[in-house]
Amino acid sequence: MSEPAAKKEQYSVIGKSVPKVDAYDKATGRARYTGDLKVPNALVGKILRSPHAHARIISIDTSKAEQLPGVKAVITAKDVPSVMYGISPARYDENIFAVEKVLYVGDKVAAVAAVDEETAVKALNLIDVEYEVLPPVLDPFRAMDPDQPQLHEQYPRNISVEIHQNFGDVDKALADAYHVRTDTFSGTRAAHVPMEPHAALSKWEGGKLTITCSTQSPHYFQYHIARVFGLKMGDVRVLKSYVGGGFGGKLEPSGAEYVSAALAMKTGRPVKLVFDRWEVFVHHRGRHPQHITLTTGVTKEGKLLGCHARFIIDGGAYTSLGIASAYYAGAMLPLIYMFDHYRFDGFRVHTNLPSCGAQRGHGAPQPRFAFESQLDMIAKDLGMDSIDIRLVNARKPDTMTPNEFKVNSCAFTEAIQKARRISGWDEKKGKLASGKGIGIGCGGFISGNGYPIYRTRLPHAGAVIKVSEQGDIATLYTGAVDIGQGSDTVLAQMAAEAMGIDFEDIKLVTADTETTPHDFGAYASRQTLMSGWAVKEAGEEVRRQVLELAAEMLEANVEDMNVDRRVIYVKGSPEKSIPFERVANEFFITRGPLVGRGKYAPPKLGGSFKGAPVGTSPAYSFAAQISQVETDEETGQVMVTDVWDVHDCGQVINPTLLHAQVEGALFMGMGEAMYEAMVFDANGKPLNANLGDYRIPTALDVPQVVSDLVDSYEPAGPWGVKEVGEGATLPTMGSYANAIYDAIGIRIYDMPLTPEKVWRAIEQRKRQEREAAEKK
Amino acid sequence: MSEPAAKKEQYSVIGKSVPKVDAYDKATGRARYTGDLKVPNALVGKILRSPHAHARIISIDTSKAEQLPGVKAVITAKDVPSVMYGISPARYDENIFAVEKVLYVGDKVAAVAAVDEETAVKALNLIDVEYEVLPPVLDPFRAMDPDQPQLHEQYPRNISVEIHQNFGDVDKALADAYHVRTDTFSGTRAAHVPMEPHAALSKWEGGKLTITCSTQSPHYFQYHIARVFGLKMGDVRVLKSYVGGGFGGKLEPSGAEYVSAALAMKTGRPVKLVFDRWEVFVHHRGRHPQHITLTTGVTKEGKLLGCHARFIIDGGAYTSLGIASAYYAGAMLPLIYMFDHYRFDGFRVHTNLPSCGAQRGHGAPQPRFAFESQLDMIAKDLGMDSIDIRLVNARKPDTMTPNEFKVNSCAFTEAIQKARRISGWDEKKGKLASGKGIGIGCGGFISGNGYPIYRTRLPHAGAVIKVSEQGDIATLYTGAVDIGQGSDTVLAQMAAEAMGIDFEDIKLVTADTETTPHDFGAYASRQTLMSGWAVKEAGEEVRRQVLELAAEMLEANVEDMNVDRRVIYVKGSPEKSIPFERVANEFFITRGPLVGRGKYAPPKLGGSFKGAPVGTSPAYSFAAQISQVETDEETGQVMVTDVWDVHDCGQVINPTLLHAQVEGALFMGMGEAMYEAMVFDANGKPLNANLGDYRIPTALDVPQVVSDLVDSYEPAGPWGVKEVGEGATLPTMGSYANAIYDAIGIRIYDMPLTPEKVWRAIEQRKRQEREAAEKK
Repeated sequence: MSEPAAKKEQYSVIGKSVPKVDAYDKATGRARYTGDLKVPNALVGKILRSPHAHARIISIDTSKAEQLPGVKAVITAKDVPSVMYGISPARYDENIFAVEKVLYVGDKVAAVAAVDEETAVKALNLIDVEYEVLPPVLDPFRAMDPDQPQLHEQYPRNISVEIHQNFGDVDKALADAYHVRTDTFSGTRAAHVPMEPHAALSKWEGGKLTITCSTQSPHYFQYHIARVFGLKMGDVRVLKSYVGGGFGGKLEPSGAEYVSAALAMKTGRPVKLVFDRWEVFVHHRGRHPQHITLTTGVTKEGKLLGCHARFIIDGGAYTSLGIASAYYAGAMLPLIYMFDHYRFDGFRVHTNLPSCGAQRGHGAPQPRFAFESQLDMIAKDLGMDSIDIRLVNARKPDTMTPNEFKVNSCAFTEAIQKARRISGWDEKKGKLASGKGIGIGCGGFISGNGYPIYRTRLPHAGAVIKVSEQGDIATLYTGAVDIGQGSDTVLAQMAAEAMGIDFEDIKLVTADTETTPHDFGAYASRQTLMSGWAVKEAGEEVRRQVLELAAEMLEANVEDMNVDRRVIYVKGSPEKSIPFERVANEFFITRGPLVGRGKYAPPKLGGSFKGAPVGTSPAYSFAAQISQVETDEETGQVMVTDVWDVHDCGQVINPTLLHAQVEGALFMGMGEAMYEAMVFDANGKPLNANLGDYRIPTALDVPQVVSDLVDSYEPAGPWGVKEVGEGATLPTMGSYANAIYDAIGIRIYDMPLTPEKVWRAIEQRKRQEREAAEKK
Repeated sequence: MSEPAAKKEQYSVIGKSVPKVDAYDKATGRARYTGDLKVPNALVGKILRSPHAHARIISIDTSKAEQLPGVKAVITAKDVPSVMYGISPARYDENIFAVEKVLYVGDKVAAVAAVDEETAVKALNLIDVEYEVLPPVLDPFRAMDPDQPQLHEQYPRNISVEIHQNFGDVDKALADAYHVRTDTFSGTRAAHVPMEPHAALSKWEGGKLTITCSTQSPHYFQYHIARVFGLKMGDVRVLKSYVGGGFGGKLEPSGAEYVSAALAMKTGRPVKLVFDRWEVFVHHRGRHPQHITLTTGVTKEGKLLGCHARFIIDGGAYTSLGIASAYYAGAMLPLIYMFDHYRFDGFRVHTNLPSCGAQRGHGAPQPRFAFESQLDMIAKDLGMDSIDIRLVNARKPDTMTPNEFKVNSCAFTEAIQKARRISGWDEKKGKLASGKGIGIGCGGFISGNGYPIYRTRLPHAGAVIKVSEQGDIATLYTGAVDIGQGSDTVLAQMAAEAMGIDFEDIKLVTADTETTPHDFGAYASRQTLMSGWAVKEAGEEVRRQVLELAAEMLEANVEDMNVDRRVIYVKGSPEKSIPFERVANEFFITRGPLVGRGKYAPPKLGGSFKGAPVGTSPAYSFAAQISQVETDEETGQVMVTDVWDVHDCGQVINPTLLHAQVEGALFMGMGEAMYEAMVFDANGKPLNANLGDYRIPTALDVPQVVSDLVDSYEPAGPWGVKEVGEGATLPTMGSYANAIYDAIGIRIYDMPLTPEKVWRAIEQRKRQEREAAEKK
């Protein structure tokens, strides 16, 4: 099915590293994020949040706060709709404000709107809330015990979701195996840490709600906000200003949107609500800590026969997008290596901790870490090279995973081989100086999810292009959302390529439920493929109309016409040509507005069993990542000095942006591998919910990265594109852990790879070595 | 040609007085005009203007101003493009800053951008300009003398334009006439006095200029600004915020746009420039004072045979839109009465006074005043009633004026008869108590001009409608410009009607060169007809697509389908129905974005002689206006107590807005009749360029108005519409003058009808009466 690389044509606009459309605004500080917006008469909204992880609300007295001059509204649960919300379908378990119980430190209890921030903060302090503190559930294993407090009535034993999927005959495969290993791994509650906090500016005017906010999906937000407030969708407009990162955490409306909207409706004035950094952390919706046990069997030659994966996933207080996260944890595991027998048993449980949801790599990085670590151990057990065992099992094009993910293009083998070559693997593995090591991790990811979680009959993306009447510019209307990743730029390139004009000719109107076509937004690495298809179709409708008219004007056959970089010409007679601009202008004169329309809906994907659709995608990307580390046996400090990442991501639209995505993803993976974990005291109170104590990699920490590609063309993607934005988070933890093992023989099963943890392991190894020596 | 009134159908959305879409914002003060906009880092721009009416610039020293802290730029002619501009084609005679000479008090000499207004004003005072004062040309009659200073090299004898048009054989018609009169009349330099001053906020970012301004035509502005600064049109974006009135004065870019753009390009920072009220007055571009001599011949029965009209028109310093104004003065005179022989000789001349241009009624109100006054005198000479002589001559439907204006619908006779009836004319004329009188004036106006002044091959209007994917709202993209008159509301009604949905379902994106289709803008009363056609066509394209799909869904024939107020049904089987919303949603699911496109280009109009196209329109409206006055012989004070206006304006889209337009126009006519005139000292310095001394009618001054209509359907207009926004300015001066004559026997030939002028005329009449009595 996947088309040969030879099919790649030479393109005029795609494949070029044009500068980002917002580079100038961002570099000069002109870009205005939601928090920068100034609106006359606006109030400042602030949320009062629970200081307890688990407590019953006895009473709330807002009278003192209401009397503070400058306070325009104080609201609690009784002032807002009691409609529960959430982002997982049929799992609506959150209220705008806690009704009876608070379920985590940071749960929303009340809010104020005041003339300025100082007054708003003072007013929060004047709200008296009486709590009956309840014992918190903090341990995901104990959470399922019947004697534990139950957080939600509707989720017995605090089980948020329980998933059991079984493909082939795993028991037999393991029984038949030459070698079987069982190992347990765990990951952390890593956070998105977007540079821009969640923020919303809500206006309520004439029965219509307009929310400008930091969002990954205005169209999802519109749906949910209309639902909660009982408004017609057409009476809710959601749009964005610049967005300073989302990483999955801004796919669902937060208190910023719901509460500012409620305050705007109460006061009749615009209300701006910006989270502080502590709120960003406790609101969370980031990485689920997973406890993963893998039992895997192989042949003597290292061929994978089957795998049984068991997950205990800490979901925190609410569901958020956790149902999908739990599915992805298991569903993406068999993507990159070929084996037929697979079983997956998962439990997502509720604790009185911040709610976990979608985060770059969505559910998949920790299982990938587990599998890549175990695969290295199996290779060692079999006396095989880590790369050789991967090559034996690497997925091939036009194959199907046991859980029915249909893979078209796949240059995974080539990616592994190229990584091996450019990293100098064969000269380094097991041969580096003391304390130095090299390791490999691999990954694969979806290019958008095949099934939307809401409004499931809608196409996933629409696009409209209107060419100006003088013909010199074209405005692309797309609901796709640039959250910093550069999708505006990439889609503008695609529009220009499809129409045969230049990148500079494209103007953009994006991510506004009122003026742009429906698009599910920025998540699941879907936009380049899905929004891109819609843009391509819209551009080609423009191109076709222009070429038809040009053929008339040049007295030629339309089949003989072509357009490239604004010049329309007769193929084979390049002297017969006419500028695009002139034809577009003539089009308006003789036929009216020149408009093209496009949409994208994925083909039918996946199998028929329950849960199969979750995770299925029109296309999958693959990556091999090799890391080199230096360890300090005295301190346990690990320095990652070099990373070689080779991605199979199909056609490249903008090389600079593509490599920036790879680097961003693998540095995010690095954070999760090396530094990041939200930690809590015994009462569930966060101890590092600030940028001083919660450490993320800085420019000083990151390794030298070589981001490279293999030639690839994805038939399901426009011009052959597929994912690049998230995949590189997946191999990182495994490649680091494997490199450390290569360096010092230490196997770390739980993230992150802190110096203390490495040092303790080194000390333990030394002790064991001493003891062994003594025994002799 | 004109269709019978019976053709009017019952409509669901048009014909209803829905509230203006911006009523809420404007009533609550939320509406933000350009001057209200706040942008981070913005500078304030201010213009240094000439204190002399005519002077040579010897030197400009900006050094002291530049050294003032907070000043970011000081610019003069040497810092800006030397490309001349204007709004009349091939009559570019203005510079951003005066290069060698200043031509009126207020001419632009230099400008500053500073951190705040106080600093900017201080900096203006620090600019040293040395002038050689030249004798000013202030009298339009003397201006043409060869000994007078010449303002522009290219206009010998200061003649801006000279127009001679001759239809039929006027000399023979006058020679054949039973009665011939020659009278001379004059009008004033009345001003638009928009409540919002001219204002622009310019940004220069990445080689692209974005100007948010108070404009009647973003698309004209874009064209001219791109031309002057040598930019691609696509790199100039012009859009508007709310606009607080234009009345013709904001059809051409002013110093607000050109200078703020130049300052933004110089400083790299946003620059906001708002005129003060004095600047609004001296920039002017308002009414030309005309001196009009009419020689008119009639039969014994009062039938008009021919007319020779001569005009001397004071154009002020620059051309502005004055070429068209001068043409309109003559071209619109023979519109409302039927006669075959017409000659028109006009001279527009330059003086060192503020430049005159387009103002509501454009060129036509003063000639109409002259003709309506003279017609009353002729009626008196013949012993006829003022209304009877009008009925004898009133234009009939499906006729052609001598200068080849093709009139379709025309219910002028009915309008006169209805005005006669509702005013009680027959009981009042010549029969009211002493000092009271009643008079009639009539008028007619175009519904857009048939030929655009620029980009003449472009259709006049385009429209795009995108229906939301859930199907519950539709966004109308139109370049039409709501300047307060309500066009957004009217076009939204038209869009809803065309699609068969409700007014509340329409969202608007308007008047933005980047996101909305081309439209020439708000002038010449063109939008309801011209933009309306484009909107109707776009709406009907949506309707057609929806009905086709609905027919499939309901298994019916598309010819049998109808849609009304969101319900699609099978005609004759109303039980077979489906909501518009559901079908539109299904359309997106199965076919992609639901988009409709429309455009309007007028049919070929007018004759073949030079000048004929100017003023020709697809449709003409007609009005009869009867006014009743009370005069005080002691003081000369005139009180207009009642006005009855009967308009023939075709199908009504929004009755409340329509009557508001009639009232606004006739109050503007009242200002010109009673109070308004810019006055100057002997050096050309304005004496009343402020809202204290320049008097406009207030709520306390205006009469009781009955605005009524006659049944009418215009085949050239969508749903039968034609003009209403300007026509009612035309009859007012004449009807007042005629009423005063009826009251006290005084004939005033020159506007305005000030108490002093009326008192002097009364005193003169008394003196003459005394002298006559003494003679006896």
